[in-house]
Amino acid sequence: MTRCVCPGSFDPLTLGHLDVVERSARLFDEVVVAVLYNPDKQGTFTADERVGLIEKSVAHLANVRAEAFADELLVEVCARLEAPIVVKGLRGETDFSYELPMATMNRSLSGLETLFLPGNPGMDHLSSSLIKQVATLGGDISGMVPEAVHGPLLERLGVAG
Amino acid sequence: MTRCVCPGSFDPLTLGHLDVVERSARLFDEVVVAVLYNPDKQGTFTADERVGLIEKSVAHLANVRAEAFADELLVEVCARLEAPIVVKGLRGETDFSYELPMATMNRSLSGLETLFLPGNPGMDHLSSSLIKQVATLGGDISGMVPEAVHGPLLERLGVAG
Amino acid sequence: MTRCVCPGSFDPLTLGHLDVVERSARLFDEVVVAVLYNPDKQGTFTADERVGLIEKSVAHLANVRAEAFADELLVEVCARLEAPIVVKGLRGETDFSYELPMATMNRSLSGLETLFLPGNPGMDHLSSSLIKQVATLGGDISGMVPEAVHGPLLERLGVAG
Amino acid sequence: MTRCVCPGSFDPLTLGHLDVVERSARLFDEVVVAVLYNPDKQGTFTADERVGLIEKSVAHLANVRAEAFADELLVEVCARLEAPIVVKGLRGETDFSYELPMATMNRSLSGLETLFLPGNPGMDHLSSSLIKQVATLGGDISGMVPEAVHGPLLERLGVAG
Amino acid sequence: MTRCVCPGSFDPLTLGHLDVVERSARLFDEVVVAVLYNPDKQGTFTADERVGLIEKSVAHLANVRAEAFADELLVEVCARLEAPIVVKGLRGETDFSYELPMATMNRSLSGLETLFLPGNPGMDHLSSSLIKQVATLGGDISGMVPEAVHGPLLERLGVAG
Amino acid sequence: MTRCVCPGSFDPLTLGHLDVVERSARLFDEVVVAVLYNPDKQGTFTADERVGLIEKSVAHLANVRAEAFADELLVEVCARLEAPIVVKGLRGETDFSYELPMATMNRSLSGLETLFLPGNPGMDHLSSSLIKQVATLGGDISGMVPEAVHGPLLERLGVAG
Repeated sequence: MTRCVCPGSFDPLTLGHLDVVERSARLFDEVVVAVLYNPDKQGTFTADERVGLIEKSVAHLANVRAEAFADELLVEVCARLEAPIVVKGLRGETDFSYELPMATMNRSLSGLETLFLPGNPGMDHLSSSLIKQVATLGGDISGMVPEAVHGPLLERLGVAG
Repeated sequence: MTRCVCPGSFDPLTLGHLDVVERSARLFDEVVVAVLYNPDKQGTFTADERVGLIEKSVAHLANVRAEAFADELLVEVCARLEAPIVVKGLRGETDFSYELPMATMNRSLSGLETLFLPGNPGMDHLSSSLIKQVATLGGDISGMVPEAVHGPLLERLGVAG
Repeated sequence: MTRCVCPGSFDPLTLGHLDVVERSARLFDEVVVAVLYNPDKQGTFTADERVGLIEKSVAHLANVRAEAFADELLVEVCARLEAPIVVKGLRGETDFSYELPMATMNRSLSGLETLFLPGNPGMDHLSSSLIKQVATLGGDISGMVPEAVHGPLLERLGVAG
Repeated sequence: MTRCVCPGSFDPLTLGHLDVVERSARLFDEVVVAVLYNPDKQGTFTADERVGLIEKSVAHLANVRAEAFADELLVEVCARLEAPIVVKGLRGETDFSYELPMATMNRSLSGLETLFLPGNPGMDHLSSSLIKQVATLGGDISGMVPEAVHGPLLERLGVAG
Repeated sequence: MTRCVCPGSFDPLTLGHLDVVERSARLFDEVVVAVLYNPDKQGTFTADERVGLIEKSVAHLANVRAEAFADELLVEVCARLEAPIVVKGLRGETDFSYELPMATMNRSLSGLETLFLPGNPGMDHLSSSLIKQVATLGGDISGMVPEAVHGPLLERLGVAG
Repeated sequence: MTRCVCPGSFDPLTLGHLDVVERSARLFDEVVVAVLYNPDKQGTFTADERVGLIEKSVAHLANVRAEAFADELLVEVCARLEAPIVVKGLRGETDFSYELPMATMNRSLSGLETLFLPGNPGMDHLSSSLIKQVATLGGDISGMVPEAVHGPLLERLGVAG
């Protein structure tokens, strides 16, 4: 049985994230979506809220669950979850350059391997921060976030649906 | 008649920006330099001051004007201006990676197209922030900003001309 | 009136190329698809055949036409066509790195400007050579080339439809 | 049980390739090293010889085997092997730009997923062609290819060991 | 006699930095490690502490010394030190894109040349900020910073050795 | 005394190459421009002709000379010349990605270090092959190659000056 971890801040989950999780769920036996957060920094959603939005969005995937981790190294999270693999979506070359040092660091710390899954072309432009910026300025973000995230995000940002 | 928009924060306009505006003015019928700003964040110059510095710097170009937009989506700015095209200068591959998701986002929001104009080689290193850093530390920034910007920038940064 | 040129070898036209041409046709008054070729090198299709396949594929666009140019500098082609603008689709950062020196060269030769249009995300992986490789090995290339190109390409490559 | 395919031309296998195969063998139940070749092009080694050199180099890995495929789409190779995953080592951003269109193409053809494994830092500079160039000019290539490949490669290139 | 400057914030020195300094010390007659800092921003270590940690780490290199510079242009630092060359380690393409505008700026300001030294492959993932993040979360950072930096860094971050 | 080598095929020398050589001549005591060539492949100019064109173009630089090397590893060339440093001009990120594996290879073979000098912005688009293509099609290449190269190149390509 192979378990993999999809780590991120997921503040909140986008359709790009969900695509990576769904594809990972087809390739591996179990997927844990790991919400890594710093308890001293305030996000748009709390870690528990983010886990809740993910759980709702992956309800159709029997082998996926979400969990939050405060101030913990990814290598320790994966060791505790007995997951030897991290799966990260890549949205382009800049993403790769940003992720590569962390992947190398993790492998040097514990042998943890990172596998990069190229993003779905139509979703490469989606990031939580860009979506929040668009929503805040009144843009239509349907088709960018999962159904379960759409309403709560608009409400949290204080913009009409 | 084709109108295009050159968006940015322009805090302040550099000779690299001006080069893109001048070349756009030769390719399109009308160019609007759109100063996009967040009224809650303080810049080096106010939005009105930035528009003023741009207007002085493009006084020789009959088909160019500048306007400031607070907290507004670029797609709405362009819709209101009836401009179907955004022109952005590219200073290198990193610029491209940064601009691409926003261009794709804008096209998905309203069909707005972004055309990238490669920067003038001798100006690829010019950015408002690097120029301000150089000026603050006493470096000579003539040849980096338009004539009209030079004095006001030194004064604002509190450094001798 | 602004006329632009979309240059390439187009051996043959892909749906990615067609997307760039269609979008250019909405942004500019006239578009000339310029088939640049070396008469000493044999392609999959002759230059005339390529022009024919393009003409069929853009029949719905009143302001687009195709023309072949043997051994001619792009700056001269554009001068002769009275087109001050080249529009090139960009499929990613590597494309940009490859195209940038030619764009700079053309500007230094005659002032000809190149505007880069980011590719349609779902079409970024399409290139004439990769499509021909897939077709040769028996892969299904519908959805990769225009209707008018599909049959002739399979026939030319000697593979069943 | 998850089976993955590590495709390539492997003419010949390098220590960089072997590193990717060994790491894949720890992450997946079975690994097939697929030597893809064009029977009309002559390589340094024949496809059978390449398979033989790989088999010797992975003799210590019980769940790895090698096989040659002439003129066949990777998606068909993987379908026949009942392998839903391709694992490719990445040596840098340029590798990523080169591999991405093929990964997207394969996913569009059959749903086949490509997972990218970042190369071992000390091996990022190793490629079959650069190693052959160094060996041909008399450079010492020990530490660049597996033990089993070293002698046969020098012999084939006609250089003293 | 050629003197070169290795500039940075060095908060603190990593083994990646030290590798660049050691290699520079073999190529040039004298090396000055220049700690550039902003006295208004608090770092993990003070500028004097950083210089002290560097001096201890380069004690075996007779032609290397460290010095701190507050709020000063690199071109002025180098002019004062009579050093016509800056040597910067490059950890990848993103590093290059980030460093290039500053190198061009420095050359335009005073003719100061920047030479880029490619990083040691096994150290490309090391940055002061990533190492501090790992240490803060309890990861083992031996093998990432020089001996002389290890204890002081753990102490400063308030984590057990 | 520090001697450095500027290697390349120089078929022929461009103003971009000359810029790197001139700047290297200011930074190092001696510069050897090394024409590396494969005697089995025919170039535009013979190796001896290339050396001659370089010698004429660097006649104003007392500490620069040119020499041709057939089928020899760069590390051996540098060992024989007692030069511990290679200086390569970089025209952009793609150049860097191409050069990095060779630089790492050379360091692993003999400890030979490669220092990258960022190209002069106005010359980043110049390559021997692009210039020859422009000249062949009748474009004006003055301002792209040294005076001494201009005539011989036009003559060799069989185009009027």
